[in-house]
Amino acid sequence: MPRERIMETARTVYRRYGYSPIDTPALEYLEILTGKGSEETDRQLYRFEDHGGRQVGMRFDLTVPLARFAAQHIGSLGVPFKRYHIAPVWRGENTQAGRYREFYQCDFDSIGTDSVVADIETALVIHDLLREIGIQRFTIKINNRQILSGLLEKLELSQLTVPVLRALDKLDKIGKAAVAEEMQATAGLTNEQANQVLKLADIAGSMSDVLDCISELVRGSPLGEQGADRLRQIVNALRTSGISEECYRIDVSVARGLDYYTGVIFETLLDDLPSIGSICSGGRYDNLAELYTKQHLPGIGASLGLDRLLAAMETLKLIAPTRTPAPVLVAFFDKERLADYLALARVIRSAGIGAELFPEPKKLGQQLKYADARGFQVAVIAGSQELDNGTCQVKDLANKSSVEVAWREHADGFLQAIRNVLANG
Amino acid sequence: MPRERIMETARTVYRRYGYSPIDTPALEYLEILTGKGSEETDRQLYRFEDHGGRQVGMRFDLTVPLARFAAQHIGSLGVPFKRYHIAPVWRGENTQAGRYREFYQCDFDSIGTDSVVADIETALVIHDLLREIGIQRFTIKINNRQILSGLLEKLELSQLTVPVLRALDKLDKIGKAAVAEEMQATAGLTNEQANQVLKLADIAGSMSDVLDCISELVRGSPLGEQGADRLRQIVNALRTSGISEECYRIDVSVARGLDYYTGVIFETLLDDLPSIGSICSGGRYDNLAELYTKQHLPGIGASLGLDRLLAAMETLKLIAPTRTPAPVLVAFFDKERLADYLALARVIRSAGIGAELFPEPKKLGQQLKYADARGFQVAVIAGSQELDNGTCQVKDLANKSSVEVAWREHADGFLQAIRNVLANG
Repeated sequence: MPRERIMETARTVYRRYGYSPIDTPALEYLEILTGKGSEETDRQLYRFEDHGGRQVGMRFDLTVPLARFAAQHIGSLGVPFKRYHIAPVWRGENTQAGRYREFYQCDFDSIGTDSVVADIETALVIHDLLREIGIQRFTIKINNRQILSGLLEKLELSQLTVPVLRALDKLDKIGKAAVAEEMQATAGLTNEQANQVLKLADIAGSMSDVLDCISELVRGSPLGEQGADRLRQIVNALRTSGISEECYRIDVSVARGLDYYTGVIFETLLDDLPSIGSICSGGRYDNLAELYTKQHLPGIGASLGLDRLLAAMETLKLIAPTRTPAPVLVAFFDKERLADYLALARVIRSAGIGAELFPEPKKLGQQLKYADARGFQVAVIAGSQELDNGTCQVKDLANKSSVEVAWREHADGFLQAIRNVLANG
Repeated sequence: MPRERIMETARTVYRRYGYSPIDTPALEYLEILTGKGSEETDRQLYRFEDHGGRQVGMRFDLTVPLARFAAQHIGSLGVPFKRYHIAPVWRGENTQAGRYREFYQCDFDSIGTDSVVADIETALVIHDLLREIGIQRFTIKINNRQILSGLLEKLELSQLTVPVLRALDKLDKIGKAAVAEEMQATAGLTNEQANQVLKLADIAGSMSDVLDCISELVRGSPLGEQGADRLRQIVNALRTSGISEECYRIDVSVARGLDYYTGVIFETLLDDLPSIGSICSGGRYDNLAELYTKQHLPGIGASLGLDRLLAAMETLKLIAPTRTPAPVLVAFFDKERLADYLALARVIRSAGIGAELFPEPKKLGQQLKYADARGFQVAVIAGSQELDNGTCQVKDLANKSSVEVAWREHADGFLQAIRNVLANG
């Protein structure tokens, strides 16, 4: 149920901002997927030949299929095209355990606009989503890849963006010294150049200090200056939108593992469990769709990692105990009176209240044990005598009290008795 | 949106009867899937070797994975275990077209009970689900495999159940004569035996005539008599539950293609488009889980075929025109006033009304064209002058009328103006 509740919340928040649902197939032609994410996603792809002899793969994220879909259909879709997609993705690993590498992502994206409005809305949606899920303490880390690109432009290292990014992405895990070493070993930077790039990791202070430092660092690079300016617009808008400043910060060392990002990027950490990693990530990918169409089709979006968030909420004890989706159990005793029990359940459901009819005429104790294990709130109990009278017991399973009410004629009192228990629960 | 709305309806109805959501992985070990459905599902399986060298397949339905899951976890789950699952399944075919064979099923199942209550509830859920989706004219065809099994028992042909079933399953497509021929050619029945079996297809008349004919046909076979008795209980319960008799009928020629059914089976046809085939099918599969556990673990459930239903609804023009999930478009004109536009959108959303901010400062005509194409109901329009005054235009996009209202202070009138338009839409 917490999984369903979070998906439901995501749908509600996404729709409120004008994102429509779409669905793309789990399988894509292999060439659509390869070379789009990273060396790692290429390696982890589940791939096979289908019954028509075509090479296909299972999607490793929802962004690449969206870009393919948008590129193919943008003529009829029109822009801006805002969509959300809640679905599983697959990343195979050579593990011994029997667990498959399938996990759910809850994505939302805007296609076809370069506007900073889409960048800002992405941050607002991440914020609203986490708040409505019930997460109070989180930090959206915001960066713009143009900062690093601008810095590399200044250092005349633009062609090394990918290996530098990949090294920088390991900063949290292996630390500055090891990243500097990797930049020299795999990207061929000098020690001095690596230290220049790693200045990014030292930027700290108040929001305006950070913004000033960044502007200073990229001054002279048009790309870098544009990136710094956009970062400034985003944080200004978050501030004027009344988002608490504890919920976001600029972190120019955030790299994101995927190659396709070109502009702003987001990662979201739980303040009480940062070690689990980002639970909502995304960014701007202005060139991805161009791999499938000649049209310029910028995109931006983010993805809630449902399984990781659920694992974190479990650790943080933020998950409410499981409850059955129907709060009322109708106990069943007498096979000959099945029609009456069905009628009883139907009266409850007709009032919009979920009711489950126990399927076997077992002893009351066994049925109440089932009710407790499943988290039912109300048991409706009627033996043959009560069925003859058109009455039943409405039992509050939390405090064990019961009332006898009529249900067959004038069911109002019966339904009210159930509602009273549910209101207390 | 119609797809989302149907899934939403399915979730609501399933929960009302006490089914809980679960999710099983798309990939299963190959041996879990093979030999469970039919020769056809075996042939159509998407299969490959994963990164750990294991043979895996993509599920071809949601029932087989559920049986595997229940067998594995029933100790901790307890019975009855009622669950629903809305997810894609895959059946590969050697087609030339670029379309993959992926489609959604909306399943609900009860595991761990032999009770006829579960059979009856399955029919009730199918009925309620279709009604709430908005389908008025449909027929649930009900059969029980025990009738055929009983008849074959009497004819001493029990070991030929599978080939006889497969022949019978083609009755609608190829007719009685061809089915009789197939029964002789592939199952080795005599002409006389084939005609005996095909008597099933001739049973007709009122509900009680049909029930009497069936009882007569299987008399002497305990299995057949049990099946006939259960059919009688089901239709009696549907009648006393007030389900219109136009919504269901007994059809003992219904076979269902899948091998795992053992008892009652359901198919649901649209009265106005029967040719599209069954849109909601299922039945009792009391032995399926025993392929994965020694425990007796009977099951029953049904599955709404979402993609087929959507195709049918499109043909029958039952699908409402697409509407954006957020009904209000906030037009955007002046980049310098972005904070004001963001605030305006936020006021609307805070009242629980979806609002999309157009991301580019384009001409009003272009923005209204977008609003029309996407099915927005309201446009909120404010230039710099109006923003200075804290006012805006609320435009009803259907009848083109506008009112000017204040939004920054005392937003009540503003929100009421929006609600008035939405109430008319």
